[in-house]
Amino acid sequence: MGAVFGKNIQFAIFGESHGPAIGGVMSSFPHGVKLDLPYIDMFLKRRNHKALYTTKRQEADNYEILSGVKDGVTTGAPLAFIIRNGDTRGKDYSELENLVRPGHSDYPAFIKYNGFNDVSGGGHFSGRLTAPLTFAGSVARQILRDKGIEIYSYVVSVGNIKCPVDSDNAKEMQMADFPVADESYKEKFIKEIESAAKDGDSVGGVIRCVIKNIPAGVGEPFFHSVESEIASMMFSIPAVKGVEFGKGFEITRMRGSEANDCYEVQSGKIKTVTNNNGGVTGGITNGSDVVFQVAIKPTPSIFKPQNTVNVNTKTNEVLQLKGRHDSCIVPRATVAVESGAALVVLDLLGGK
Amino acid sequence: MGAVFGKNIQFAIFGESHGPAIGGVMSSFPHGVKLDLPYIDMFLKRRNHKALYTTKRQEADNYEILSGVKDGVTTGAPLAFIIRNGDTRGKDYSELENLVRPGHSDYPAFIKYNGFNDVSGGGHFSGRLTAPLTFAGSVARQILRDKGIEIYSYVVSVGNIKCPVDSDNAKEMQMADFPVADESYKEKFIKEIESAAKDGDSVGGVIRCVIKNIPAGVGEPFFHSVESEIASMMFSIPAVKGVEFGKGFEITRMRGSEANDCYEVQSGKIKTVTNNNGGVTGGITNGSDVVFQVAIKPTPSIFKPQNTVNVNTKTNEVLQLKGRHDSCIVPRATVAVESGAALVVLDLLGGK
Amino acid sequence: MGAVFGKNIQFAIFGESHGPAIGGVMSSFPHGVKLDLPYIDMFLKRRNHKALYTTKRQEADNYEILSGVKDGVTTGAPLAFIIRNGDTRGKDYSELENLVRPGHSDYPAFIKYNGFNDVSGGGHFSGRLTAPLTFAGSVARQILRDKGIEIYSYVVSVGNIKCPVDSDNAKEMQMADFPVADESYKEKFIKEIESAAKDGDSVGGVIRCVIKNIPAGVGEPFFHSVESEIASMMFSIPAVKGVEFGKGFEITRMRGSEANDCYEVQSGKIKTVTNNNGGVTGGITNGSDVVFQVAIKPTPSIFKPQNTVNVNTKTNEVLQLKGRHDSCIVPRATVAVESGAALVVLDLLGGK
Amino acid sequence: MGAVFGKNIQFAIFGESHGPAIGGVMSSFPHGVKLDLPYIDMFLKRRNHKALYTTKRQEADNYEILSGVKDGVTTGAPLAFIIRNGDTRGKDYSELENLVRPGHSDYPAFIKYNGFNDVSGGGHFSGRLTAPLTFAGSVARQILRDKGIEIYSYVVSVGNIKCPVDSDNAKEMQMADFPVADESYKEKFIKEIESAAKDGDSVGGVIRCVIKNIPAGVGEPFFHSVESEIASMMFSIPAVKGVEFGKGFEITRMRGSEANDCYEVQSGKIKTVTNNNGGVTGGITNGSDVVFQVAIKPTPSIFKPQNTVNVNTKTNEVLQLKGRHDSCIVPRATVAVESGAALVVLDLLGGK
Repeated sequence: MGAVFGKNIQFAIFGESHGPAIGGVMSSFPHGVKLDLPYIDMFLKRRNHKALYTTKRQEADNYEILSGVKDGVTTGAPLAFIIRNGDTRGKDYSELENLVRPGHSDYPAFIKYNGFNDVSGGGHFSGRLTAPLTFAGSVARQILRDKGIEIYSYVVSVGNIKCPVDSDNAKEMQMADFPVADESYKEKFIKEIESAAKDGDSVGGVIRCVIKNIPAGVGEPFFHSVESEIASMMFSIPAVKGVEFGKGFEITRMRGSEANDCYEVQSGKIKTVTNNNGGVTGGITNGSDVVFQVAIKPTPSIFKPQNTVNVNTKTNEVLQLKGRHDSCIVPRATVAVESGAALVVLDLLGGK
Repeated sequence: MGAVFGKNIQFAIFGESHGPAIGGVMSSFPHGVKLDLPYIDMFLKRRNHKALYTTKRQEADNYEILSGVKDGVTTGAPLAFIIRNGDTRGKDYSELENLVRPGHSDYPAFIKYNGFNDVSGGGHFSGRLTAPLTFAGSVARQILRDKGIEIYSYVVSVGNIKCPVDSDNAKEMQMADFPVADESYKEKFIKEIESAAKDGDSVGGVIRCVIKNIPAGVGEPFFHSVESEIASMMFSIPAVKGVEFGKGFEITRMRGSEANDCYEVQSGKIKTVTNNNGGVTGGITNGSDVVFQVAIKPTPSIFKPQNTVNVNTKTNEVLQLKGRHDSCIVPRATVAVESGAALVVLDLLGGK
Repeated sequence: MGAVFGKNIQFAIFGESHGPAIGGVMSSFPHGVKLDLPYIDMFLKRRNHKALYTTKRQEADNYEILSGVKDGVTTGAPLAFIIRNGDTRGKDYSELENLVRPGHSDYPAFIKYNGFNDVSGGGHFSGRLTAPLTFAGSVARQILRDKGIEIYSYVVSVGNIKCPVDSDNAKEMQMADFPVADESYKEKFIKEIESAAKDGDSVGGVIRCVIKNIPAGVGEPFFHSVESEIASMMFSIPAVKGVEFGKGFEITRMRGSEANDCYEVQSGKIKTVTNNNGGVTGGITNGSDVVFQVAIKPTPSIFKPQNTVNVNTKTNEVLQLKGRHDSCIVPRATVAVESGAALVVLDLLGGK
Repeated sequence: MGAVFGKNIQFAIFGESHGPAIGGVMSSFPHGVKLDLPYIDMFLKRRNHKALYTTKRQEADNYEILSGVKDGVTTGAPLAFIIRNGDTRGKDYSELENLVRPGHSDYPAFIKYNGFNDVSGGGHFSGRLTAPLTFAGSVARQILRDKGIEIYSYVVSVGNIKCPVDSDNAKEMQMADFPVADESYKEKFIKEIESAAKDGDSVGGVIRCVIKNIPAGVGEPFFHSVESEIASMMFSIPAVKGVEFGKGFEITRMRGSEANDCYEVQSGKIKTVTNNNGGVTGGITNGSDVVFQVAIKPTPSIFKPQNTVNVNTKTNEVLQLKGRHDSCIVPRATVAVESGAALVVLDLLGGK
């Protein structure tokens, strides 16, 4: 509850965009895990990658591990880590304390916290919070990897451009800054992003995530189904507006005879022939890959002037954002989706 | 966790389709609530309605309240209730103990429970479990109604037929057995269902649910956002394969300037002009109606022969289902969606 | 939270003394356990035993299992059960609706529930709620027994009479209606109870509980230590006012050199020479038996007239209780203590 | 669960004695609270006070607030803070990696974490973890103070010396480094500590804690009673071996007629005449002060040689501790007891 996720591993997240530091605590974390730092860094770097701002490889955020690790190996005590924020609270946000940004948390947060919330850079609602999620998720993912479970994701669509093919190349997708099943679509997606950027606007997209080699029999039948847990995590990631498993909304247009995934014996093992249900039936994994799609809305930060209100004076105003804003977060969000999925899967497997 | 949902009110669900009884326990339930039994029955009746099997009004399931209510008023002690199962475990399911039904929980449950699960009628995975959900949700809904919060839903599509309009008639939708925003679509939907039924097949559809008058400022910023909690509940309902808020997956094809819900002052109150975000930004309600869509897959129980396996002999087999099966559960599922939403909203409001 | 206990197995308890039924739901309960009904009944009978009212063996409460068990074997679905209440809400409690009984929950419950709580027979606060605890705990205990872990308890003192010896005879203690380490003390204890009963008064006592063969390494280091979890459960049992581990309060009068349990190698195994810490150091089991004492206050229901108030008129009154009241619940409480301990241990072991 | 405590406010604790930092995260913490830093520092200083090592006032630990506070006022986002450890992992603990200290967590932690736990200074099991508990508890206590609820505690006994009187002077006790109800006992207690210290030994004691002005009607009837929650927290504090409410174990030697706290109307308010039940009946506060005693065992770190084992070689050894060890932690533990109680009470009141 609150800012804590998980039953077997409890992950507490904290931080505000322009506060001293962001970070997290993973309680009941398994002992004896030698952290694979280059592996973890690979994902932190991907999270920092901005497709259009720069072509050079981004650095990973600098994290500091405060507890739970000795000589590079987990001790079993809570694993706490922080990432210092470089920026300090600037003056450029003072305007935002009054004008609430459409599509952002500003207004609901103003109501919930009675104006005491930190609005600089989005405060606790900032996309920057996906950095601790990525660190924690990558540590979880390392444990899963060592069990043979691989998690990867890729961009299915950006705006109106949709890549029609699937990828089952976990390694390649995991290492790509802008993972796409058909490499030729990367350019098309970037064009779509550039086109929006030129207009001072933004675009969203869809991410598909795959959990390979997760065993059958994981999850709970009613509450806390595999789908419930994954969706709960995904809807924590800023800008996510939809989650669907397998064919998802498309399955509603299929007949039962098409939608049902028939079973067959393959080399002595029971397998589904198709995977329209995304690897989950009755809330429990069925041995196929768990596959789900996540809808990412267009970044709400745009340069076009927008109508909004001043929450103090309760007057209508026009907001004109300045500064640097990512006109599409979909490529970077892949790593947040994968990291969240890794935490959920490790927790579903009993936290070890 | 497990079969328990909620933080402020903990709802424990139990029961198997052909066991002695199904039911639930609501802990920490508010005291002093005089139960509006006709109101609760209205929803239980709707849950029993089968569009094609019969034209006469269905009876509500017979529930018995075991604790937490005295002289018709809640005492504050855990509210426990049961619904007896009429059917006993029949012989007609014995075949299913070996042949796993595609699209159902049979195979993952067999793995998870090592074959000890009760397969009769789907056991604990049966859609029948939505009856206790409906009872509990209706009691929660009564409390919300008394605060002015109304929850309703309607069928947006069945198979390939989609009704293009919205409804804001909470009362009418709540009382309808087959709630549709444009009444003329009801017939089209029924035709689609009948067409599938004639083929021994089934169809799915999409439900839109609206939570009216929920105050701004409800929910948590990261984990346990309003969307996380609602989605977690929805994915507990059997056959749900997708959940989206506001424009959902469609919002990924909009530009930020279209997608952002601008604010304006209306009669001294701050309101959004549009509601593409479905009433939630930053995980917290923004004062607009909370609106979400739920994808219901075609009922996996179909009469067409299907390829499957015998889990004991690990041989390929052909399954031919008998008996009576609903070829579309979408209309009935509306009440489960609304009931689940009611439980979540009451919990988010602090359980009272 | 609320009326739900446990992380791996969530046990929801419900019921009011004079309502239709009391019972419980155990979620995430292990599958494939063949219930040993005579074993479970043995403990339910012990709970019903009243040392002074009768010499004949008591019957076990009649429970009905509603779900989670098929052909006598657990299915893995939530295990729900009820025990019907024979008495109906009588008129003899009408006076209590106004006069709050000293030492009972009446007054705090009146405040918490604003007078809506069911006061008949103590309502949800009745000692009768230890019947579902005993049923659930006995099922848990059966699983532990099959792992070699035995839980037993015995009466250490009644009023001012204290038995100076310990028992390590698990089997004998488990089967005794009035378990005492030195059988000769049973009579002394009964005399003490009879003496209080003659005066229209009541007595309390101390129970020692032993968990044999629990492995080392169980529990959490800070929050949710073994002691935290056991104490949390014990203080749920009505009339418990103190919990101590090992030497408990007496250890505060020892020097560190006496109190520390030194280790030694015994036949290749590391063991403590003494067990002053009751088998737990640093919140985690150390391989010795877990031993704790529970203080049970004298039954608050006494026949002597008592000063109290009428909560409606806010006037001082004299209360004179009628009916049959147990003048010492200590012997019966042993089985509640053991059952609670069994649930905690099963949960600490991961729920299986 | 794990290292997280609380339902409404979730407090995650972390850190190891000789790791980079210890600290905590309080999720769902109320917004708009201006931190009273001198008040908080007063308690941190008390925690650092060592009765015998020095006569000069101790400094408070240096904490850094990482999130959840802006301009000295809480924002409503998770409040995270750290306290850097001055010492680094020294070589003087290398011996301990093999010889397990009697009365300490070393052996159970070795088993639980398979030897991967950090043993330097006790690692995560160190009494140093009470510093984050004190910080978090002091912030909670400030909120309670502003509601008129005062928490204080004092040393009732050290070893065999017991102070026979009670204190109701909250302010004085809160400010004292060594709070005692009768000041003349402070010297007697110190003498008892010195006597043990001279012998290279240690002593324990009993602390009484009082929660003044907590309203009636707080807590849950069965699981998660006020006593359950407080005891669960107290048994998290290192060295606690017993918790009792009101007369506690002594109440077992009273008759019901003495033990029951009769009610009377005092100036129009209902009050108990006595407080043998420590302010809680039926698991719920009854409007009297909540009073409980905590048994603190003698510090397990003593200079006398002790028999123990080498966990690697499984041989019997003699352990001779060096360095500086507190021969009685009871005075310092008062502030941990009060801080833990403050967190529990704030949580029980709904976290605000």
